[in-house]
Amino acid sequence: MIEKKGRALLLGDGPVITASAAVGGKKEGEGPLGASFDLIVKDPYAGEKTWEKAECLLQKKAVTLAINKAGRSPTEVELLFSGDLINQCTPSCYAAVGLGIPSVGLFGACSTAAEGLALAALLLEAGACDRAVSVTSSHFCTAERQFRTPLAYGGQRAPTAQWTVTGSGAFLLERQGSGPRVRGALLGKPVDMGISDVTNMGAAMAPAACDTLAAFFRDSGKTPDDFDLILTGDLGSVGHRIVQEQLGQEGISLDDRYQDCGLLVYDSARQDTHAGGSGCGCSAVVLAGHILREMAKGSLKNVLLAGTGALMSPMSLQQGESIVGIAHLVWISAE
Amino acid sequence: MIEKKGRALLLGDGPVITASAAVGGKKEGEGPLGASFDLIVKDPYAGEKTWEKAECLLQKKAVTLAINKAGRSPTEVELLFSGDLINQCTPSCYAAVGLGIPSVGLFGACSTAAEGLALAALLLEAGACDRAVSVTSSHFCTAERQFRTPLAYGGQRAPTAQWTVTGSGAFLLERQGSGPRVRGALLGKPVDMGISDVTNMGAAMAPAACDTLAAFFRDSGKTPDDFDLILTGDLGSVGHRIVQEQLGQEGISLDDRYQDCGLLVYDSARQDTHAGGSGCGCSAVVLAGHILREMAKGSLKNVLLAGTGALMSPMSLQQGESIVGIAHLVWISAE
Repeated sequence: MIEKKGRALLLGDGPVITASAAVGGKKEGEGPLGASFDLIVKDPYAGEKTWEKAECLLQKKAVTLAINKAGRSPTEVELLFSGDLINQCTPSCYAAVGLGIPSVGLFGACSTAAEGLALAALLLEAGACDRAVSVTSSHFCTAERQFRTPLAYGGQRAPTAQWTVTGSGAFLLERQGSGPRVRGALLGKPVDMGISDVTNMGAAMAPAACDTLAAFFRDSGKTPDDFDLILTGDLGSVGHRIVQEQLGQEGISLDDRYQDCGLLVYDSARQDTHAGGSGCGCSAVVLAGHILREMAKGSLKNVLLAGTGALMSPMSLQQGESIVGIAHLVWISAE
Repeated sequence: MIEKKGRALLLGDGPVITASAAVGGKKEGEGPLGASFDLIVKDPYAGEKTWEKAECLLQKKAVTLAINKAGRSPTEVELLFSGDLINQCTPSCYAAVGLGIPSVGLFGACSTAAEGLALAALLLEAGACDRAVSVTSSHFCTAERQFRTPLAYGGQRAPTAQWTVTGSGAFLLERQGSGPRVRGALLGKPVDMGISDVTNMGAAMAPAACDTLAAFFRDSGKTPDDFDLILTGDLGSVGHRIVQEQLGQEGISLDDRYQDCGLLVYDSARQDTHAGGSGCGCSAVVLAGHILREMAKGSLKNVLLAGTGALMSPMSLQQGESIVGIAHLVWISAE
């Protein structure tokens, strides 16, 4: 049963995340969450000929690991929700055909992990399937080449710049089983605050995160106190500060239960990642690895993830547009 | 109530398509379906500075027209499902922020119209929203520049090549109201038959259409005789023939109730469009304009659309990959 309260969608018991898997690259493995990854692939090519094929492989590995953990096979999965940052979602499309699962292709930039989890949970709750996987990925090398400068160029990074996570996070959702449940969702509204600085994505996405979180607290009847942890996807240090300030001005105090996956995934001072991590893989690996492990241990009961995304394209920026932000929300509960 | 029968999803009464709008370009207006468009925009720039901004405008026009036809306002629409062919779905993202509606970004290449209709219908049926819009677009100039050669190059087109439709089709779906209903859906499985000829997309997508149609007839208990019209999205003359032959070999006879939106939208002999139309806008404008007008007149009762898509990227082809096809299906009924 889906209960619609304003923009908030509450899912009753909600479908179960019966398994998840996080696959990361070398830098992610060396970060503070290194031990939470199921697999670290140190070679940026992952043995493939191109970075895009490597990213595709990370996605297939994450999906297969998650499915195996639950003792299932890909043929038992009825729907795959996937997407990434690369033109025409290339890694996701080739991963999907390799897995052979009916597929719903998504484009939500870095918000895709939350978008996929929300849609998968809603369709499971509605009875449209019994078992679904949601997966996303990003890769430092594929993203840098496409969105910024050739890697060999060695451009200096701005202090506000973020570091695209190399990794993939996959979630197996089932109607029955044991594990935390998706209890709520809210689909984000695109917000354009006129920011066009591609080295300051956190500032461009923060207003969308505020819109989504404020709408959820307003419509769901929940307060920040109902959650042990409130996460944004990849706002980094700049966006994290903006969210705290802006929501504070609206009378919503997140306090120290508010964190950002981009700040958790790296030790920025030691790993030289400037404002923090970003990319479709950022919130996906932090949730699929670290957070769900903490929930399994019982140290976290209720987690809100507002998966943030910058709907930007190099071409639209060249054409004088600013960066559109979006944030999709899921509420995951181990109670 | 969603009834899952194998891969087929049957929707009981199903949500209502209360309004739709088709916006086309000059060539589309001069085609056999010219009279079915709500708006023809003859200038490929649509008064904007770039083709991408023009495509964005077509999408906003289509959504606004559909919402206005039903006497609604954008603030009454709870979810927008949208996507297109352009890198990072640029036209859709900027259209969504302009409309200010909470948005689910999709990537299904030319299958996006059917993908969006299917997801919107399923979430409406599940009670996740009361009113949603699904929209897609394509533009000959944005697609040619991105996928093939610069327009000024004037390259010769292969006989199997298709012509990307300039246009946008939008559908307003509501839980209550009058109009045809979405009675069923089936989400497609990606299929890769090893075809890498970008001037023969119909052949690359046809196997996916066959997989989807065969699965629907096998699982739903329906036969081709239950439909007045069975449509594929943009297979053109080459793919259309392959589907007839391949399904025929599997004992599924579509006969003359089978058509393809890419063959309907242009008069290929007169308009020099070779194998027919293609693009996200192709099935969207044919369904939003011509088909739904025929359903309103009572000349069509039950229509199946298998929206076909080629999940290709110029980069993946350069890297030696072949073209992945997918086809999402919706059943629309005026009974």
